[in-house]
Amino acid sequence: MKAAAYTGNKTLQLAPSEQISPADNEVRLEVAYCGICGTDMHIYHGNMDQRVRMPQIIGHEVSAVVAEVGAGVADVQVGDRVCVRPLKFGEAANFDRGNAHVGKNLRIIGIDMPGGMQSSWTVPAYTLHKIPDELNLETAALIEPLAVAVHDVKLSRLKGNETCVVIGGGPIGLLIAMVARNLGARVILSEINESRLTLARELGLEAVNPLEENLADSVAELTEGAMADCVFEVSGSAVGVQVMTDLVCARGRIVVVAIHPDAKPVNLFKFFWSEIQMIGARLYEAEDFDDAIQLAASGQLALKKLITKVSTLENVAEVFETIDSQPDGIKYLIKCNET
Amino acid sequence: MKAAAYTGNKTLQLAPSEQISPADNEVRLEVAYCGICGTDMHIYHGNMDQRVRMPQIIGHEVSAVVAEVGAGVADVQVGDRVCVRPLKFGEAANFDRGNAHVGKNLRIIGIDMPGGMQSSWTVPAYTLHKIPDELNLETAALIEPLAVAVHDVKLSRLKGNETCVVIGGGPIGLLIAMVARNLGARVILSEINESRLTLARELGLEAVNPLEENLADSVAELTEGAMADCVFEVSGSAVGVQVMTDLVCARGRIVVVAIHPDAKPVNLFKFFWSEIQMIGARLYEAEDFDDAIQLAASGQLALKKLITKVSTLENVAEVFETIDSQPDGIKYLIKCNET
Repeated sequence: MKAAAYTGNKTLQLAPSEQISPADNEVRLEVAYCGICGTDMHIYHGNMDQRVRMPQIIGHEVSAVVAEVGAGVADVQVGDRVCVRPLKFGEAANFDRGNAHVGKNLRIIGIDMPGGMQSSWTVPAYTLHKIPDELNLETAALIEPLAVAVHDVKLSRLKGNETCVVIGGGPIGLLIAMVARNLGARVILSEINESRLTLARELGLEAVNPLEENLADSVAELTEGAMADCVFEVSGSAVGVQVMTDLVCARGRIVVVAIHPDAKPVNLFKFFWSEIQMIGARLYEAEDFDDAIQLAASGQLALKKLITKVSTLENVAEVFETIDSQPDGIKYLIKCNET
Repeated sequence: MKAAAYTGNKTLQLAPSEQISPADNEVRLEVAYCGICGTDMHIYHGNMDQRVRMPQIIGHEVSAVVAEVGAGVADVQVGDRVCVRPLKFGEAANFDRGNAHVGKNLRIIGIDMPGGMQSSWTVPAYTLHKIPDELNLETAALIEPLAVAVHDVKLSRLKGNETCVVIGGGPIGLLIAMVARNLGARVILSEINESRLTLARELGLEAVNPLEENLADSVAELTEGAMADCVFEVSGSAVGVQVMTDLVCARGRIVVVAIHPDAKPVNLFKFFWSEIQMIGARLYEAEDFDDAIQLAASGQLALKKLITKVSTLENVAEVFETIDSQPDGIKYLIKCNET
């Protein structure tokens, strides 16, 4: 029973995974797969050292099998295959207006408390979503990021007859693009990495390299001047923020998915002039997980193509080094049990 | 029959007002009152010299009486009291998505073509909205800016049980505050000019001077940490843009009303973190004029208190100098006919 623990300074160490008996309304899981998220890379780089307590078992993109249930747990039983919505809700604040997933006292399991990159993991029962037979545990480890994409597309109010641009073709950008296309929308993906562009084209997306073509001109040409109804800013870059307002039509929407630690210049004149809207999007709600599971189980998305490599806990340090040194890959999974 | 013409370099000159016979679907008006807008001041300062053709008769906040109707005009007749929605629609573009009031080929009557600060004015019949008997022509000159405020509050999706902050207490800021309060919402106005603050308090608004108190702290205190559901950025200032994201609750909305010629740093992290939305708002649609007229006619808004002074066309140069030299006043009207 092993765990991957962040111990500071770009270091992940193998640590024991404790089998913690579930308290009331808790469930102990045997983790099947845990995906590595951009946030895990932020932790790895030390950007969140003031938030995580070292050694910190990280990971929050989990598929698992229920091993033990605590008293009061009615919705799952031993042997159920599940994925985890890793949110720990605190006391509701007036500020929240009932939006618990962005509430003032929200904590993230895997960042603010031990995560799922370990063999045995004990979590609140309400975090679990059962997965159907037709979904394998490998693909089910993508449910968490897919729920992010489902949430983002929902907040964008994108319709099937609309066009959207996704700026940034990493895991979340590609998942947004896939969910949007599945809805029937036309999707133009902007990405600077050639491997990712190739993958995007294999997935049937229109893809533009903004280092080679002017993105706004390309969108204008592809849409015959109609421009996009919706833009997803997933790049986190200043150029992404600069160009996003040039891509949308009158009353177009821009969804801010990426994390921008510093304030960036935004063309507010364009907001006024064309009555643009900007919508911040973060995490997911319970329904987004349900929708993501249904979508993944339907087989309509080529999710498997996003899995770059599956490794074991023993090799976790090497996997983080690989992700850090070359940006071609999409989603790396860690297999956390032999079963 | 006189007109106020902008001739460049902070100069307004008296010019003749031509009586132009209305063509098909046009109407000739005898203008009663024409208000002076912030945009007129921008023209006066030369900021729009590349857009206006000098000499340019300006003015677009007009109440008037119908003097002559062209062929095909069915909705108004001679003697009707009207106000003018000064939009000239061009050919619809795909980009517009049916939103003609922010369409690519929209022109503004009074900026891109001769305006209403003159005795006789000939305009397309579709621009006219009849005003009811209980509304006097002086107050009716405020319908155009009131329609802006109605439009802004509509796009904000503000509800009567919500709290909003209006940043900037000029004419549009005060009108937004009045429309929002009339809806039942709690309104906190932020303004740095003491005369305007006094007027705001006379109008029954909660008013804060952000030079004397920290605005975010004040809003937190006044709302017991719940913060505002909605913020209207009407100041056009960098500090307004800086503070706006600190004032809203989870999933709060920010409406960009002011014109920001240059890109300004925006706290995009807060958009992500609390799922904030930003909504650009410009001008108005026909329904906004109808709603503004109904609201003004109801007598529920103290519109008269916003009229600082009524002057004549002969004194127009002096009025612009006054507005330019001291920022205490709110709305100056020019009386354009003796009737």
